[in-house]
Amino acid sequence: MYIVGIDLGGTFFKVGLVDAKDGKIIKKIERETKVHEGRVKVVERMAQAVLEITEGFEYTGVGVGSPGSIDHDRGIVRFSPNFPDWVDFELGGELSSLLNKPVFVENDANAFVLGEKWFGAGKGHEHIVALTLGTGVGGGVISHGVLITGKDGIGTELGHVIVEPNGPLCGCGNYGCLEAIASATAIKRMAIEGQKKFPESEIFKAEEISAKIVFDAARNGDLLGQTIVNRVVNALAIGVANFIHIFNPSIVVVGGGVSRAGDILFTPLREKVKHLVMPSFKGTYEIVQSPLVEDAGILGAASIVLQRKMNQQ
Amino acid sequence: MYIVGIDLGGTFFKVGLVDAKDGKIIKKIERETKVHEGRVKVVERMAQAVLEITEGFEYTGVGVGSPGSIDHDRGIVRFSPNFPDWVDFELGGELSSLLNKPVFVENDANAFVLGEKWFGAGKGHEHIVALTLGTGVGGGVISHGVLITGKDGIGTELGHVIVEPNGPLCGCGNYGCLEAIASATAIKRMAIEGQKKFPESEIFKAEEISAKIVFDAARNGDLLGQTIVNRVVNALAIGVANFIHIFNPSIVVVGGGVSRAGDILFTPLREKVKHLVMPSFKGTYEIVQSPLVEDAGILGAASIVLQRKMNQQ
Repeated sequence: MYIVGIDLGGTFFKVGLVDAKDGKIIKKIERETKVHEGRVKVVERMAQAVLEITEGFEYTGVGVGSPGSIDHDRGIVRFSPNFPDWVDFELGGELSSLLNKPVFVENDANAFVLGEKWFGAGKGHEHIVALTLGTGVGGGVISHGVLITGKDGIGTELGHVIVEPNGPLCGCGNYGCLEAIASATAIKRMAIEGQKKFPESEIFKAEEISAKIVFDAARNGDLLGQTIVNRVVNALAIGVANFIHIFNPSIVVVGGGVSRAGDILFTPLREKVKHLVMPSFKGTYEIVQSPLVEDAGILGAASIVLQRKMNQQ
Repeated sequence: MYIVGIDLGGTFFKVGLVDAKDGKIIKKIERETKVHEGRVKVVERMAQAVLEITEGFEYTGVGVGSPGSIDHDRGIVRFSPNFPDWVDFELGGELSSLLNKPVFVENDANAFVLGEKWFGAGKGHEHIVALTLGTGVGGGVISHGVLITGKDGIGTELGHVIVEPNGPLCGCGNYGCLEAIASATAIKRMAIEGQKKFPESEIFKAEEISAKIVFDAARNGDLLGQTIVNRVVNALAIGVANFIHIFNPSIVVVGGGVSRAGDILFTPLREKVKHLVMPSFKGTYEIVQSPLVEDAGILGAASIVLQRKMNQQ
């Protein structure tokens, strides 16, 4: 069985034809989203890409992982910060009528946890907490086999759990959300803020400051780099320990660009979480780096189709 | 249909015969638990009480709300802090063989949320977050109609979500858990700690300091009382906002002894949570005081029977 996953971003969208058997991506295309051309044009270009990629293949359906607040039962984008004209937009219906195939839409962080369940580190798990550390911090949870979305489909905003009351201001208006400390955006911001105190830091020798540059500096023993990484790890550890106490998951999967820092992030994170969880939770969970890397978006989106078909059975 | 609920506590247990139709308690008994006499004696006394209370009534089953870590599928108490010899104890099986009836065991905080769903403020809701503010802080969650217990049945430890990193030491070993600030025990402790700075506080004129005395003082304009209530409200607001962002519930029910403080707690709590939740969550939830009051334990325990029967259908 073949399925299609569309990873919709504000600048680019990626479309992949996926073999549902093993999650192998048969073909993929990346196109510019061009939000400014209006939503009708965007959907037409998405449909065009699906037609190109599926030529000669019989496919079952299309999953779209979209940023923003999604009414997943009806395939509607309620609103999405980088898509100004996408208000109560029937993305699923529009795309479905162009393709004559079922189309399922889900929030991109929820798609991420589904991708991990069907094709990634969460295979065989019924209790999964997933975090994506990218421009923002997204979260997705599967508990008792059920994708937790809440009454209105807007739940598991794990990036907006407060881990440092009185901490840095978050885009959402609160102070000290996980996203305000552990996102790539926050890491870059903390580096820039550190320049006054650490003018000699190697971070400022880089052409462009990024989360990667900060982790590289920390690895080289740079004091500012280490200070920032330490703060990121502390914030993540409080968040992850909270999620473990709340969901009692068998696995916590951390993905997104920041997760590629690897051991310098995961080794102290595992250590701190171990100290924060209550004795009864010891040994009940593992914390792993997402193995899906750059295909996480397409595979997550494609997994929406599988999860919906499973729920319909 | 009649069902029996047993609210098991470290000092007393309560047994109630409940009409499943409307949650009316037909009869109830309270007995001393006498944990020191050993678990066999305790279970025998529980069975005796059930026999007494059900005489002349046909009943369907027994639910037990027990403190501690519960393997609810097998009716086993894994361990329970105030019950030293209850380690991997087959409470459900033992009681069932004495009564010749099905017996279901659940953690008491999980029983509380079930009670709210079947007989309390959560009727008709599929997404409920419940908190009990008593000696400790317990939590129970129903999400998409499912009681969330996690992989090992030990989840929704909402009282151990960290809301004040570097805050007061909690019984669990962490600093700044919700329980370390918003439990009756914590409120009493904060009052005692405040004596040095506020020796004139009316709190110290009371025969015995309690959470109730602290709330009464705050209502009278006492500065220490108000300072403590303010801290409790802030901690609870962060916790509740986190839970709303995580579960997107339609209702948050707060019960337990501390909740009886009423408006002085709930009015500022609702106000602060409103400021903390993201715009998309505004108007999606309500925060209510548990209406079940002192019968919450029995009704919660009895509800376990109803929930299990529903899941078996």
